Amino acid sequence: MKAAGVIVEYNPFHNGHYFHLQGTKEQTNADVYIAVMSGNFLQRGEPALVSKWTRAKMALQAGVDLVIELPYAFATGKAEVFSNGAISALDTLFVSDICFGSEHGSIDAFKNTVQYMTENKQVFDEQLKKEIAKGYSFPKASSLAYNSLDSAKYTVDLSMPNNILGYHYVKAIHEQKSSIQPHTLKRTGAGYHDEKPFDNTIASATGIRKILLGNNGELNKIKSLVPETTYDALISYYESYQTYHHWDIYFPYLQYKLSVTDPAELRTIYEAEEGLEYRVIDKIKDASNFTEFMEAIKTKRYTWTRLQRFLTHILTNTTKEEMAPYLEKMEVNYIRILGMTDRGQAYLKEVKKKVEKPIITNLNAKHDDPMLKMDIRATRAYALGYPQEIRTSLINQEYRTTPVRISHL
Amino acid sequence: MKAAGVIVEYNPFHNGHYFHLQGTKEQTNADVYIAVMSGNFLQRGEPALVSKWTRAKMALQAGVDLVIELPYAFATGKAEVFSNGAISALDTLFVSDICFGSEHGSIDAFKNTVQYMTENKQVFDEQLKKEIAKGYSFPKASSLAYNSLDSAKYTVDLSMPNNILGYHYVKAIHEQKSSIQPHTLKRTGAGYHDEKPFDNTIASATGIRKILLGNNGELNKIKSLVPETTYDALISYYESYQTYHHWDIYFPYLQYKLSVTDPAELRTIYEAEEGLEYRVIDKIKDASNFTEFMEAIKTKRYTWTRLQRFLTHILTNTTKEEMAPYLEKMEVNYIRILGMTDRGQAYLKEVKKKVEKPIITNLNAKHDDPMLKMDIRATRAYALGYPQEIRTSLINQEYRTTPVRISHL
Repeated sequence: MKAAGVIVEYNPFHNGHYFHLQGTKEQTNADVYIAVMSGNFLQRGEPALVSKWTRAKMALQAGVDLVIELPYAFATGKAEVFSNGAISALDTLFVSDICFGSEHGSIDAFKNTVQYMTENKQVFDEQLKKEIAKGYSFPKASSLAYNSLDSAKYTVDLSMPNNILGYHYVKAIHEQKSSIQPHTLKRTGAGYHDEKPFDNTIASATGIRKILLGNNGELNKIKSLVPETTYDALISYYESYQTYHHWDIYFPYLQYKLSVTDPAELRTIYEAEEGLEYRVIDKIKDASNFTEFMEAIKTKRYTWTRLQRFLTHILTNTTKEEMAPYLEKMEVNYIRILGMTDRGQAYLKEVKKKVEKPIITNLNAKHDDPMLKMDIRATRAYALGYPQEIRTSLINQEYRTTPVRISHL
Repeated sequence: MKAAGVIVEYNPFHNGHYFHLQGTKEQTNADVYIAVMSGNFLQRGEPALVSKWTRAKMALQAGVDLVIELPYAFATGKAEVFSNGAISALDTLFVSDICFGSEHGSIDAFKNTVQYMTENKQVFDEQLKKEIAKGYSFPKASSLAYNSLDSAKYTVDLSMPNNILGYHYVKAIHEQKSSIQPHTLKRTGAGYHDEKPFDNTIASATGIRKILLGNNGELNKIKSLVPETTYDALISYYESYQTYHHWDIYFPYLQYKLSVTDPAELRTIYEAEEGLEYRVIDKIKDASNFTEFMEAIKTKRYTWTRLQRFLTHILTNTTKEEMAPYLEKMEVNYIRILGMTDRGQAYLKEVKKKVEKPIITNLNAKHDDPMLKMDIRATRAYALGYPQEIRTSLINQEYRTTPVRISHL
C-alpha cells in the first residue's frame, strides 16, 4: 500500500483542511493517508481547543486513515524542530509522499531554496546574527537575513508562515536523507487557490476559534465553515466537558507557578533565555488575565508565539535538560496512534514488522520513554482545564483512552 | 517597660484566647504584651482562615500590644521547630515572661520534665527509635517512648497537644539559655479551667472554623464564641475578599503541581521523606477534593498534621535546601511587625537600639533575607486563594500592606 502524509494541527478541522486533504489525494494518489498531528499543545504555544482524541476523530471522519501524535517535544517547538519531528514520524511509517499548503505553491521553488540555503549557509548565518543583534525576533531576523541574500528573489518568500513551515519540511527531508517526495498546494488567505467556488465557506482556524470562544449563541456561524462531523464533535465536546480550552483557563496555574518559583529555578525551564525568567516573574504580579500578561511581557525581541511556547513549557514543567537530546537529534522515539480507520489499521499491520520504533496503541506503565513522559505530563496539564468537578478522571486519561476507531462504509 | 509574650495562631481569635490573654496579664503583670503569631500558614499545615493582617488586628483589638510574625520556616514546623522559632523571636525582643495554656497546668512539672528528659535523652532516643520502627507516627512514638520511662508518671503527660507545645517552649528556653520565665494556665477541653462561668461561650478554633466554613447562615452561631471585634473583622473580611481560606480552595494548585512534577523533583521539597513523594503523585490522580486526597495518602506512619505540612511545603515550593540552615540553627533572622498599638510602638522605640536583628515594619525590595523570601512566597501562594477577579493586587500585598495600628482610648 502506498501511504501519503500530512502534517497538521486541526484546531479544529475545517473546510480548508478538507480541501487540503482532497488536494493531497489528487496529487499523491495513495492508498492510505496518514496525519501526524500535534497533541494537546500546539506549535503556537497554546492549548488545543479540544483534546487530541476529539481532533483525531474529526480527521478520521473527514478522510484521514491514520492519526499519529507529534510528540510534545516537537509539537511545541519552533518551525525547524516541529518539522523535523513530523518528517521523522512519517518517514518511520514509510510514507512515500507528503503534501503541504503554502503561499508560494510550487514545490520546485522550495527544493531550490533548500539547496540554495545549504550552499549559502555561512553567509546567511552571519547576516542572521547581525539582524538578531539589532534586536529583531528570530523569525523576523531570519526573514531579513534571507531577503538580503542575492538569489532570494528567485526563491520562496520566507516571511510567510506556511512557506516557512514548508521550507522546513523540505529541508528536514533533505537533512534526514528521507526518500519522501514533497508536494505543495497554493493557498491564498485562509483557503486554497484551487478552490475558488468554496471561498466563502473557508475561514482560518483562528477565526473559527474566535467564534467558538466568544458568544456561544454564535456557534451556528461556524456551521458553514466546518464539516458537519466537526460541528457535531465540537457540540458534543462542550456537552461532555463544559469547556473549550484556551490560555485563560490555565492562567491561574501560571500565576501560581510564577508566584512561588524563583528565577534560578525557572531558568531550568526550556526556552528560558536572556533573562526572560525575571521578566515573567516580575510581570505576573500585576496581570489579571492571560492577555494582560502577554502584553506586559511582549518585546520586539520575542514574537507572541515564542513567548506562548515558553509559557507552555512553564505550564507543563518542561526543562532544558529534558529537551536537550531531542534538539540534538530531532527524531521521534515512537509512533503513538491516536486514531485509525480499517484501512489505517490494515496499513499498520502491513508495515508493523519493518517499523523500527515502538508503535504505541494503548499506553500502559511499561512505556517509560522520556519523550513520552512529556506527552503524558502535557495531557495532565491540559486536563487541569476541565471544570474541577469532572477533571479527576481526566487527569489520567492518557492511560485510559484507546485510539479512536472508525469504519468507513 | 516589662514585656510578656504569648505564642499564638488566632485562627480566629476567640473567647478562649481572650481568657488566655487575661490570665497572662494576671500572672505576669507586664506593661506590654507581645504575640508572636503564625503568618498565613499554620502549624497544623493549613492556610489560616483569614490573612495574618486581619488576625493581627483581632489580636490588637482584644488587648495585645504588638503582633510579630513567626516566620514561615518555623510556623509550619513540628512542635520543636515551631517552639524554638517563637522563643527566639520573643527573646530577641527582651520579653521577660511567657504564659501558655496546657492540659497539665503546673509550670514546675514542665520544668521537671525538661530536666528529666535532658538527663535521660539517650534512653529516650533509643526507645523512640524502637517505637518508630514499629510503624508509629513521630508524635505517637514520642509519647509511647516517654511513657515507657521510669519517671514519666511524675511529670507532664506528653500525649496531650498543648502539653507537647508547652514542653517544647520550656525546652527551647532552656536550650537557648534564655532568661524568659515561663508560666502556664490550665485548660480543659476548649477552655481554661479557671474560667468556669464562661464555659458555654468557649469553643475551640476548630469548632468555630467549622461553623464559618459551613453554612453561612449559621454565622450568628459564633457570635457568642468570639469578641465582637473578631466577629466584625470576620464579616468584613468576607465582604472584601468573598472567601475564607481553607485547603479546598488550594487543591487545584496541588493537583496541578503534582500532575507535572516527577518524584525526583518533588524529593527536593521539605518533608518529602521515605517515598512520600511517590505516594502523593500517585494518589492525586484519583482524588477529586482535598479530603479525599488526604484520606488516600494517610497511613499509620504519618499524622494528618505531618502530611498537611508536607502539602503546604509543596504548595509554597519550600525546599529541603532552603530549610536546612533553620533546622540547624532554630532562630529568627528578623522581627516582622504585623501590628501594634501606641503602647507596642512605644516599647519598640525603647528596645530598638538593643535589638540585634532587623525590625521590619514596611517591607521593601532591600529586604532580601532568604528566610523572609519564604514568608513572601507563602503570602503569594495564600493570595491564590482569593477569587480570580480580585487576586491580582493581592499577590503582591506583602509589599503593599503596612502594619495594623490601633490606638486604645
